Amino acid sequence: MPLLSKKGLKMPKSPIRKLDPYAEDAKKRGTMVFHLNIGQPDIKTPQIALDAVKNNDIKTLAYARSEGTETYRKKLVNYYKKHHINLSPNNIVVTTGGSEALFFAIGSITDPGDEIIIPEPFYANYNGFATASGVAVVPVISKINDNFSLPKIEDFEQLITKKTKAILICNPGNPTGYLYSKEELQKLKALVLKYDLFLIADEVYREFTYDGLQHTSVMAIDGLEQNAIVIDSVSKRYSMCGARIGCLASKNSEFIKTAIKFAQARLSPPTYALIASEAALDTPQKYFDDVIEEYVERRNTLVAALKNIEGVIVANPKGAFYCVAELPVKDTDHFAQWLLESFNHNNETVMIAPASGFYSTKGEGKNQVRIAYVLNKKDLIKSVEILAVALKQYPN
Amino acid sequence: MPLLSKKGLKMPKSPIRKLDPYAEDAKKRGTMVFHLNIGQPDIKTPQIALDAVKNNDIKTLAYARSEGTETYRKKLVNYYKKHHINLSPNNIVVTTGGSEALFFAIGSITDPGDEIIIPEPFYANYNGFATASGVAVVPVISKINDNFSLPKIEDFEQLITKKTKAILICNPGNPTGYLYSKEELQKLKALVLKYDLFLIADEVYREFTYDGLQHTSVMAIDGLEQNAIVIDSVSKRYSMCGARIGCLASKNSEFIKTAIKFAQARLSPPTYALIASEAALDTPQKYFDDVIEEYVERRNTLVAALKNIEGVIVANPKGAFYCVAELPVKDTDHFAQWLLESFNHNNETVMIAPASGFYSTKGEGKNQVRIAYVLNKKDLIKSVEILAVALKQYPN
Repeated sequence: MPLLSKKGLKMPKSPIRKLDPYAEDAKKRGTMVFHLNIGQPDIKTPQIALDAVKNNDIKTLAYARSEGTETYRKKLVNYYKKHHINLSPNNIVVTTGGSEALFFAIGSITDPGDEIIIPEPFYANYNGFATASGVAVVPVISKINDNFSLPKIEDFEQLITKKTKAILICNPGNPTGYLYSKEELQKLKALVLKYDLFLIADEVYREFTYDGLQHTSVMAIDGLEQNAIVIDSVSKRYSMCGARIGCLASKNSEFIKTAIKFAQARLSPPTYALIASEAALDTPQKYFDDVIEEYVERRNTLVAALKNIEGVIVANPKGAFYCVAELPVKDTDHFAQWLLESFNHNNETVMIAPASGFYSTKGEGKNQVRIAYVLNKKDLIKSVEILAVALKQYPN
Repeated sequence: MPLLSKKGLKMPKSPIRKLDPYAEDAKKRGTMVFHLNIGQPDIKTPQIALDAVKNNDIKTLAYARSEGTETYRKKLVNYYKKHHINLSPNNIVVTTGGSEALFFAIGSITDPGDEIIIPEPFYANYNGFATASGVAVVPVISKINDNFSLPKIEDFEQLITKKTKAILICNPGNPTGYLYSKEELQKLKALVLKYDLFLIADEVYREFTYDGLQHTSVMAIDGLEQNAIVIDSVSKRYSMCGARIGCLASKNSEFIKTAIKFAQARLSPPTYALIASEAALDTPQKYFDDVIEEYVERRNTLVAALKNIEGVIVANPKGAFYCVAELPVKDTDHFAQWLLESFNHNNETVMIAPASGFYSTKGEGKNQVRIAYVLNKKDLIKSVEILAVALKQYPN
């Protein structure tokens, strides 16, 4: 039998998906499972985007331009302007989801054996993309007691080697919900300029900031033109995760030229999704206002309820729609599986994402979980009630 | 300024796309350009697929399962059965186009520095995917005078090293139009079993076979269960290149397990396109009969017209919708650019793909071009007339 690749064998299983079989078994046994494990919002996609696809008059579903249609990139420029980011269409490469934007960015700036420094806990699939590219993720730890704010610059500096190509942040953060301040970004700017590194910012949750806080894009920081790369996506912004449209943005024209070669190799982003994404740019502000209001309520509900459980510590999220909580258990991988396999409360249980998969340092996050507040308030309250009962019954 | 990756710099420019700026300039000067360079058919997408998307009742455009919905994979099993290929849904991973299927396959079986042997000329983007994965394409030459049939097995055998992981074929072939016989596939079977290699077959043109010839899938060959990997796509089959849905098929369960980890890292194939692709499976046979009839006429028209030009040699395609022609010029890269930049015939010109980009061996194919017969007969005839005039005027 022919051998598989070493990197294929090393590819991590998704921490969000790996318990799926247990959830399916639970459902087969008739247990209702509340999904707090995955960032699939229940929010409706803007009608204007859905209608654009329903009203399309395509006769031949043809390739789109590899880097995205010019009309869409022009409209994206206007979108970014509203967010204080000045771009031209040539600074943008449209991708198949934020996932592909990450893959193109990593491919354009790293060779096998290179390193990328990422504050952990981080979005688990960064590990997958790095592994697929033969690149090492070098984690720098951020702490739940600091609300997962930016680690000290010295902590980054200690980890920089000749192989370091970039620092990657997620802002607002998945799974932490942390929103980096302007000051923190200025510190990162000084660091990447000093060591000639790229600063990749995954800003797919840009709109999801709470408590009156404003998001700052790395693209809006003067002096970072050659270093800053933004990863973006329509998935969360318009609750259209299934569209699979994202983009790369950078003012570094050599970087963009290289990324376009990756884009040409895969020919085209998905055409229907482009139609939806272009139309979604005309979504009225009220949609976002309502969504943010809903998420703030959900966050408040969730965090308050979690804090009521003895032994639970929660970082207070300022953005995105996740929070990381520390539970009074030793091993959340075991606990999360137990919730699905051996527990139910009135025939209901919850699925949570063990946080270990969001860390790259072995042993970190073993007592933490990521909870996505993508369910309505009533279900969130019920879910936390179930969690509280489970924690009492769990044979730790 | 931070450095880009070596592999990013090495990523090849698409031979199909690299003359786009010249074509755009020609159009700006008011010259009509006939596109023989790209495999974008003018054939209409089946109405049943278009309607399924128009009639969708999605409210929240959610992620699909990473490896594709079970309903779609089940329907694909039926599709394959009609083509004498026995699969189960678990043998299939749905991908974002054939492109992603190639990327997952290469990622699952090769590490940086490994080698894949490919008969050349080959689909140019194989180079892109290999480069992106740090893998070397080792070409084995096939000849226009042999109609681009399978090179001798000794020619393959000479090239096999410890780093060789797979042999990759395209059947029917892009750009050659060659259809491998059962006997040729049996020879490849013996070879890959002898050396424990994967045999990857890109079969996206499966339906496009002419002159009563039948396509044989590597998946239908007994004894290749652990070695055969099929790359597939809806792009050409249903003239829906912009959908971006393809799949990987293999009976090697370890391979599929690994490919699914790549699929999970990018979360989901595009949802709208899945709807179209699932509906397209119910396309009536008459659609294909009409399409094949159309392509046979186009091929006959094109090949006959090309053979009428002095000094032109054409391989007779038995499948797909491309042919490789040898022109009486020294450098088709220069000629193709000249056609767009310095030539027009009654304000019309043609765009062709220089074949050098379909070879990996330097200097090969310099006097060849790939011509896609994706235009209607009238335009094809006109295009070849323009080409004939151009060849007379070209200052070789």
